[in-house]
Amino acid sequence: MLLESVLAGDRLSLARLITGIENKNDDALSVLEQLFPYTGKAHLIGVTGAPGTGKSSLVNRVANLYRHPPESLSPKRVGIIAVDPTSPFTGGALLGDRIRMRDLTGDTGVFIRSMASRGALGGLATATSQVVQAMDAAGFEVVIIETVGVGQSEIDVARLAHTVMVVEAPGLGDDIQAGKAGILEVADLLVINKADQPGADYAQRALNQMLDMAFSKEMTNNFHHDLKIKTDVNNFWRPPVIKTVATDGSGIGDLFETIQKHLEFLKSSGEWAGREKRRLQSELEHTLQDHLLFRWREHVPKELYEEMLLKLLERQISPLKAVTKLLDYEMSLY
Amino acid sequence: MLLESVLAGDRLSLARLITGIENKNDDALSVLEQLFPYTGKAHLIGVTGAPGTGKSSLVNRVANLYRHPPESLSPKRVGIIAVDPTSPFTGGALLGDRIRMRDLTGDTGVFIRSMASRGALGGLATATSQVVQAMDAAGFEVVIIETVGVGQSEIDVARLAHTVMVVEAPGLGDDIQAGKAGILEVADLLVINKADQPGADYAQRALNQMLDMAFSKEMTNNFHHDLKIKTDVNNFWRPPVIKTVATDGSGIGDLFETIQKHLEFLKSSGEWAGREKRRLQSELEHTLQDHLLFRWREHVPKELYEEMLLKLLERQISPLKAVTKLLDYEMSLY
Repeated sequence: MLLESVLAGDRLSLARLITGIENKNDDALSVLEQLFPYTGKAHLIGVTGAPGTGKSSLVNRVANLYRHPPESLSPKRVGIIAVDPTSPFTGGALLGDRIRMRDLTGDTGVFIRSMASRGALGGLATATSQVVQAMDAAGFEVVIIETVGVGQSEIDVARLAHTVMVVEAPGLGDDIQAGKAGILEVADLLVINKADQPGADYAQRALNQMLDMAFSKEMTNNFHHDLKIKTDVNNFWRPPVIKTVATDGSGIGDLFETIQKHLEFLKSSGEWAGREKRRLQSELEHTLQDHLLFRWREHVPKELYEEMLLKLLERQISPLKAVTKLLDYEMSLY
Repeated sequence: MLLESVLAGDRLSLARLITGIENKNDDALSVLEQLFPYTGKAHLIGVTGAPGTGKSSLVNRVANLYRHPPESLSPKRVGIIAVDPTSPFTGGALLGDRIRMRDLTGDTGVFIRSMASRGALGGLATATSQVVQAMDAAGFEVVIIETVGVGQSEIDVARLAHTVMVVEAPGLGDDIQAGKAGILEVADLLVINKADQPGADYAQRALNQMLDMAFSKEMTNNFHHDLKIKTDVNNFWRPPVIKTVATDGSGIGDLFETIQKHLEFLKSSGEWAGREKRRLQSELEHTLQDHLLFRWREHVPKELYEEMLLKLLERQISPLKAVTKLLDYEMSLY
């Protein structure tokens, strides 16, 4: 049985289940449903940032530390999901996987999976979340979700995580990229990778200044009484800015320690529960949207849809009116 | 009447209509519907690329050339939509607008509008498309849609356009950013801005190599007979790679000319009609998705939704089962 073998942590079964999830295979989705009660244990770490910041090497380093941690800690099993818009131009996903294999191959405590973001049309968050659940149920105690890019869908995927790490690199233009793309607000940890290159100190200062501005604003907006400040200070997390060089391993120990600290903060502050709720709510809504569209497609004949599209092209009907007609048709079926 | 004054090109009325569209105001959406027959004339230009590439300055330069073109051409009215994830950290949108105002202010032939991408949850493409329609109906012959970032949502917005321009800058890391993020496939024009900086020639070569690979693959896949090659060569557009320096205006004339050539290609090859179809189909589907969710929300009581969410958190029920129960409830109403 696939269910039992995934729960037992069998890699081949997990791989098969994930393929099934990606293909929206009914059997796989039914197994996933039965696995759901066994999920909710893994620490989900989201890693995002612009291309060229060295995210993948950083993720490899962190995964390696989970496998071979400092003496006081026990090793953890690590799942890695690389959400990668596989481009026919560069074949980035494939190359990335090959480099990873070299570092982490042979270690059954690490499971790596690439997911293409193309063609998912909004379904990516759902699919990623389902793969996270599969790894979680299979006993991977840490699941790292890596996204390429700094757009809205990347923010959505990052929101799936308990701990969100935003990676910058010095010299990527005049601006701090994440700041401009509005991704900083979701960050729990900021990493300046390639910190041996010129501009690393400047980038660190710039990020800290942005954080100063954001947190002074938050303080003014939210806290009115001394008492409240005192109470909330215990539950307060300001994203640290950490410098690393993934290629030679500098700063990775620091980064690893900060991730552990954030995990402790999540548990002690009640944030863990809060994020679980947000995450499951977002998954519920995405699944709902997928199913609503699917149900509608089953009910409305292709000919009517094509007719509406043609009228739209000829400007005989507006998009709103076309949708109203299509929805009215569906309602008339009940 | 708002309808007539927008059609007459009145700026204040257009601004009011767009605000109404953003707020999903019923009156505004009804006016938009009546405007729809007057749309479909504007040349839609999508501009995308990573933060720090100087997109906004480039857009300003191009807009200026449309207003003051070479002698053989007549000036065109230009609408600019900046889809900008307004970050509380940097206030990028606001600053950008102020810089723009300085260059283009007082020219009633230019209309600029920023749209925040946050919180739109999938509705951004729809809202942007509606604002495009409003500008189109108001007689803006060119509408430039600028997005910040290189993620999936940016690709979706770029797909709205007839002509898609992807902006790179040299020295943004080791990689060509757009290539890695899978955005090159949607490009009609590639621009290397800040071409006075080191690495511009390298970036141009790298982009051309990527294009070589992509187009040789396409040739092998699609063309089998000499005759077919001959026929299709007339309908063939290989994205040119243009070097510009937006700050001093170098290369902008070239870029402007290439945009005109692409417009001619679109019309002569039938691609214009093809893209119109894809665009309206995508809008139809996005509007449909919005309405399906809206209709569902109206029908299902909040209490049931909260109950399902709680059960989900306690792992008593899977997301799929929760959605099934919620959908079944809605069906039972009919």
